[in-house]
Amino acid sequence: MQMKHLFLDDYSEGAHPRILKALEETNWSQEPGYGDDGFCRQAAEMIKAKIENPSASVHFVSGGTQANIIVLASLLKPYESVIAPQTAHIAIHEAGAIELTGHKVNVVASKNGKITPEQVTAICDEHTGGHTVLPKAVFVSNSTEMGTIYKKSELEGLAEICQQKHLFLYLDGARLGSALTSIESDLSLADLSRLVDVFYIGATKNGALLGEAVVITRPELQPDFRYHIKQRGGLLAKGRLLGIQFVELFRDNLYFNLARHANEMACRLVQGITALGYSFLTPSTTNQIFPILPESTITKLQQIYGFYVWEKMDREDTAIRLVTSWATKDEAVDAFLNDLRTFRGAA
Amino acid sequence: MQMKHLFLDDYSEGAHPRILKALEETNWSQEPGYGDDGFCRQAAEMIKAKIENPSASVHFVSGGTQANIIVLASLLKPYESVIAPQTAHIAIHEAGAIELTGHKVNVVASKNGKITPEQVTAICDEHTGGHTVLPKAVFVSNSTEMGTIYKKSELEGLAEICQQKHLFLYLDGARLGSALTSIESDLSLADLSRLVDVFYIGATKNGALLGEAVVITRPELQPDFRYHIKQRGGLLAKGRLLGIQFVELFRDNLYFNLARHANEMACRLVQGITALGYSFLTPSTTNQIFPILPESTITKLQQIYGFYVWEKMDREDTAIRLVTSWATKDEAVDAFLNDLRTFRGAA
Amino acid sequence: MQMKHLFLDDYSEGAHPRILKALEETNWSQEPGYGDDGFCRQAAEMIKAKIENPSASVHFVSGGTQANIIVLASLLKPYESVIAPQTAHIAIHEAGAIELTGHKVNVVASKNGKITPEQVTAICDEHTGGHTVLPKAVFVSNSTEMGTIYKKSELEGLAEICQQKHLFLYLDGARLGSALTSIESDLSLADLSRLVDVFYIGATKNGALLGEAVVITRPELQPDFRYHIKQRGGLLAKGRLLGIQFVELFRDNLYFNLARHANEMACRLVQGITALGYSFLTPSTTNQIFPILPESTITKLQQIYGFYVWEKMDREDTAIRLVTSWATKDEAVDAFLNDLRTFRGAA
Amino acid sequence: MQMKHLFLDDYSEGAHPRILKALEETNWSQEPGYGDDGFCRQAAEMIKAKIENPSASVHFVSGGTQANIIVLASLLKPYESVIAPQTAHIAIHEAGAIELTGHKVNVVASKNGKITPEQVTAICDEHTGGHTVLPKAVFVSNSTEMGTIYKKSELEGLAEICQQKHLFLYLDGARLGSALTSIESDLSLADLSRLVDVFYIGATKNGALLGEAVVITRPELQPDFRYHIKQRGGLLAKGRLLGIQFVELFRDNLYFNLARHANEMACRLVQGITALGYSFLTPSTTNQIFPILPESTITKLQQIYGFYVWEKMDREDTAIRLVTSWATKDEAVDAFLNDLRTFRGAA
Repeated sequence: MQMKHLFLDDYSEGAHPRILKALEETNWSQEPGYGDDGFCRQAAEMIKAKIENPSASVHFVSGGTQANIIVLASLLKPYESVIAPQTAHIAIHEAGAIELTGHKVNVVASKNGKITPEQVTAICDEHTGGHTVLPKAVFVSNSTEMGTIYKKSELEGLAEICQQKHLFLYLDGARLGSALTSIESDLSLADLSRLVDVFYIGATKNGALLGEAVVITRPELQPDFRYHIKQRGGLLAKGRLLGIQFVELFRDNLYFNLARHANEMACRLVQGITALGYSFLTPSTTNQIFPILPESTITKLQQIYGFYVWEKMDREDTAIRLVTSWATKDEAVDAFLNDLRTFRGAA
Repeated sequence: MQMKHLFLDDYSEGAHPRILKALEETNWSQEPGYGDDGFCRQAAEMIKAKIENPSASVHFVSGGTQANIIVLASLLKPYESVIAPQTAHIAIHEAGAIELTGHKVNVVASKNGKITPEQVTAICDEHTGGHTVLPKAVFVSNSTEMGTIYKKSELEGLAEICQQKHLFLYLDGARLGSALTSIESDLSLADLSRLVDVFYIGATKNGALLGEAVVITRPELQPDFRYHIKQRGGLLAKGRLLGIQFVELFRDNLYFNLARHANEMACRLVQGITALGYSFLTPSTTNQIFPILPESTITKLQQIYGFYVWEKMDREDTAIRLVTSWATKDEAVDAFLNDLRTFRGAA
Repeated sequence: MQMKHLFLDDYSEGAHPRILKALEETNWSQEPGYGDDGFCRQAAEMIKAKIENPSASVHFVSGGTQANIIVLASLLKPYESVIAPQTAHIAIHEAGAIELTGHKVNVVASKNGKITPEQVTAICDEHTGGHTVLPKAVFVSNSTEMGTIYKKSELEGLAEICQQKHLFLYLDGARLGSALTSIESDLSLADLSRLVDVFYIGATKNGALLGEAVVITRPELQPDFRYHIKQRGGLLAKGRLLGIQFVELFRDNLYFNLARHANEMACRLVQGITALGYSFLTPSTTNQIFPILPESTITKLQQIYGFYVWEKMDREDTAIRLVTSWATKDEAVDAFLNDLRTFRGAA
Repeated sequence: MQMKHLFLDDYSEGAHPRILKALEETNWSQEPGYGDDGFCRQAAEMIKAKIENPSASVHFVSGGTQANIIVLASLLKPYESVIAPQTAHIAIHEAGAIELTGHKVNVVASKNGKITPEQVTAICDEHTGGHTVLPKAVFVSNSTEMGTIYKKSELEGLAEICQQKHLFLYLDGARLGSALTSIESDLSLADLSRLVDVFYIGATKNGALLGEAVVITRPELQPDFRYHIKQRGGLLAKGRLLGIQFVELFRDNLYFNLARHANEMACRLVQGITALGYSFLTPSTTNQIFPILPESTITKLQQIYGFYVWEKMDREDTAIRLVTSWATKDEAVDAFLNDLRTFRGAA
């Protein structure tokens, strides 16, 4: 049997056709290197307009781990640490990239990918006296690695505790499009810019070939940021490659339309799987969902669909991760739900 | 007056049209992420065939500084250093990226961008006794930052001293195409694979959007290299972007044809400038040339051409850097030579 | 009321008088610097004899955090991590010193300061696939930060799992004397040398002014270790200061006698406190004990004794830490027990 | 023939007897650890009085390399570098310790160990544009590694250029006593405190067992410095060991008297060697001198005296380094000069 569709991640295809077309149309323009080109400037202005913060600065890098490395290394002094949920990408899936920059990640227990002001306070209280690291930043991701999102009030709570404790608030937006277009989201880009110190707008997982836009909202954190990018190997000679893509994504609503499509495909999967009587590991309204299925069913699905087996729940049931994207087609969703229905009936 | 042409660098344009076409044609194929895709595998096989070394391993990264960081950090223990010419990219223009990984760069005096076995020996002799760093690698670039190239015998001499002193020999091939297609080069990719421990084949400066292929020729240096890429933020989610481009460059002779074109454009500039009576800072046969011109002439040229002013020679004369590329047109060369002739007449 | 005695730690006094005398007697001998002196050589030979391992190498450094930094940085490649109990000194009280060297500490839950082979296996099983750090070492301390010790069979179990999983086993011996002279210990220095890859023999907390002897039991881990010491700022110009002290501690049984005395003082405290009806946080047979006392009693004790308040147990009771040392006098123990008895009666 | 005397360095003996006596007299006082003891506080106050800067902060560490690591790592952001003479200890003899903290050392040519404002300016001018490191500190040592000293006007010139270029000025005072008591010095400790941002007062090479007092003259550089010490493994459990020694050295003029003695012994050697017709590599008035002698003479001297052969001058002559100290006796100087006279006669 042939593999019908991959629900492995949101970067299985190339790029949205408009991105490729933009690269072609701009191909012969001679531009300065290293992000000093006109496209990067234009994209930065577009983003600053969308976030309603003219004094922000915007930098483009290649990927999420690179963004996290560069931002955190720029924010922290050698003895300072970052607080993060235990499910955070920086806490697990970046191969110790943050520690390689010299900084400890203080993890807090979290099942749904989120962190609360109380947890931040507890970590701060445990780290006093000069013999431990000094927590100086809080890492959140939106949407989280578990598909959940932060409501505006939750982010306001974190912003408040961070201000009180003199912590930077940093938001990993690898899947920010999916978060902001979630049916449950009440956050805007302008809210984000007001509430967090640094965040990035992820495009790799939302239709671009590669690219994340790092936004530094506070002027005092901006000087020399480019040195950090350069020194970590993140400054592309053809920086235009990133600028052109972001111009295309933000010159109208393409960025949000692609993310909304991914969410809708996930939503259809959630509804269909729920209708078949299954539950989920986390209450996701974004493009990553974690249905809990019998292992025998999972084994059959694995023959024809690509996805990650996430976490064993009990002797018989296991949570899997399904990811939809801008490129996911209705047919793929239909096929998956049909096959799941068939396998359930056979069980 | 409008800027006619940029000779600033070899990454002012987008990509060769065949590259863009390949991205379009492969766009909808669903592929695993992080370089585990079919295109990266295919590109690696093609390169291993070209270098005639089936036991080499090939990894794709985004840029030259990133390649240098990752390779050197993987080769050196904390107290070990790398020997390099004072003109080396890692010694100047990477904003201390190598030092950020914890390693000293031992520089040797060099006017033409090259290093000799005698210089390597001298550095080794100066670093004994346990209170200094321990040199463990030699960095060369081909073509060099000064446009010059290593002949096969020169590289053999370096390989020999490295073996004798237990040093790794690493070659930065940001402009390897230009070096190997130089009319004076007697080196092949297979020679390289035999003589050096690690090298990279640069594509960013030879027609790709971005991408360098790191080749580790010795099996004992290969395990876990991918961890270094991951941990330094160099593993692209859509690794296919690099694989597709290298497949296109190496499935026939596109890589070499593009480099040869760049060299031919530079050669025409050299001949024309020489005919006008000017000399050069270094004897380049590649796509970077360093003519020495009167400052008044340079001022006029700067109005209509983009290029770097390199080094003041004396009170009146200064060396500039002109870079040609796969995208440089005969018309641009003609225009530059005509304007230079005009300005000389006017002087 | 005047402070009668500090039970804060085992480094409140200067040094055992024999140490000071040895420094005086050797004072005018002219010796080479940086640990190349005759005393360091002699001390290394003495230690190699005691551990019955002539092929070990011995290096002297100033303190425990320094030893941990240097040893772990020498053992681990950039993407490798160390597994440790959550109570480990490196996990909490070294201000992120291990992370500063670039390495993640993978912590496992532990109440009594110890780690089990099953916990090591679980961490290894969770870290596969190339997107996480790669665990490569296990950190244990003996005695632990919680006053407990490893029995020979426990250490054999850890050595076995480490061999199986290709992990280095490293033992922090800041209080090794106290561990080995515990009435429950069945371990010898020779056992240690056979079971672990690297360990250190702590003297700062056992009668010396400062000094830890790092023992590398396996020849393949020994080359260039001195470079790590030098480069981390750990190589003392007057290395003799460390050598002289270790000669004095190991030329007879002074090292063990001092540790045994500290244990005996702690044992008397344990017996007296138990007799008064109190229990303990951990079952310690070494010089750190953790009695659980009513908060009102603690408040009174704090007026006249120095000690750390460790962990709140419930609404009324809290564990404190009492540390005895080579310098603790019977009178101090008597006084403490008397006062505790008085305060209990008054409650 | 037996070795008569070592002129290898100024740390061949133990400590001045008053230091040992002070350790003995204070031995049983119970003190808090990690530099929070009364002796460290007292020593800090004494030093702040001597430098006439009540708002300075003083910290004690174990050695010079450790001081350099901690100070520079605390001053520099990841992409910033330190400018130093090519003869600087940090540029050669610290095994890449500064690079290990992630920072490049920009070296300037220097024969006599000193750096000029013009050289600082030149380095700054070469490092602009965002692709190189950003120089942010200047490293000087006084006395220098070549035995020379900075006059007040020279240090004022450096302070001025540093202020102008926004650079920190850091002074390595491993041999500060020797510098300040040089017959040619017009500098006081108070001058130093006024002119440089951070410096350290070295005691390891001036009569102590170990210890350097780091002085941070500017309040804005002081917060959290202790974290850097802790995290680099420099915070001694028995911090009292450093405090007690500095109290002894600074409670009267012992520190300066010891240094003056070392200088006087060196001065006698210089006069005697000059009288024999030999010249010197550098014009030293401190305790390190570099006479240039015939190789045959050196060979004979090496049989009975310990010293370093420094630099070959020509076919026949070589500079050696002779170091005197607080412990050098007139007899050793007499003997050396007598033997040199004898060997010269025999030549």
